[in-house]
Amino acid sequence: MAQFMDVHHGMTGITPDQLAEAHDADLSLEKEEDVHFQHAWADPASGEVYCLSEAPSAEAVQRVHERAGHRADEIHEVPLSI
Amino acid sequence: MAQFMDVHHGMTGITPDQLAEAHDADLSLEKEEDVHFQHAWADPASGEVYCLSEAPSAEAVQRVHERAGHRADEIHEVPLSI
Repeated sequence: MAQFMDVHHGMTGITPDQLAEAHDADLSLEKEEDVHFQHAWADPASGEVYCLSEAPSAEAVQRVHERAGHRADEIHEVPLSI
Repeated sequence: MAQFMDVHHGMTGITPDQLAEAHDADLSLEKEEDVHFQHAWADPASGEVYCLSEAPSAEAVQRVHERAGHRADEIHEVPLSI
């Protein structure tokens, strides 16, 4: 398993409820892809959303996000963390 | 205090030692700006580095990074997290 940071652009004005709903949708689907979404951070002003996950691949992360209705714009494996 | 995610581009090939050294440089300077760098993640393949911090402002985050020798390319306040 590796760790990934994915980024969604254009989520300007996202509310706490919308972030929670999107994260819950990911959590409800993640087991089928052996992914775990650990944390998400959102900036409603710029519309950037960052999701940290553990997953077997970037493609598995994207499959969960796609099925949840919010495809990621970038997915980066982050093998280094501190 | 607010939470911020900042992003550095172009750090292709960054090593674990280089990430640790950069993070330590931030930690050694952060108190002067009332900033705390909580975590950093790096993708040596794409050169993306993400830093999560608590700080009074994006400008304070940037001042620490600048003095440490690695100006951030983007700094986003992330008032929403889950």
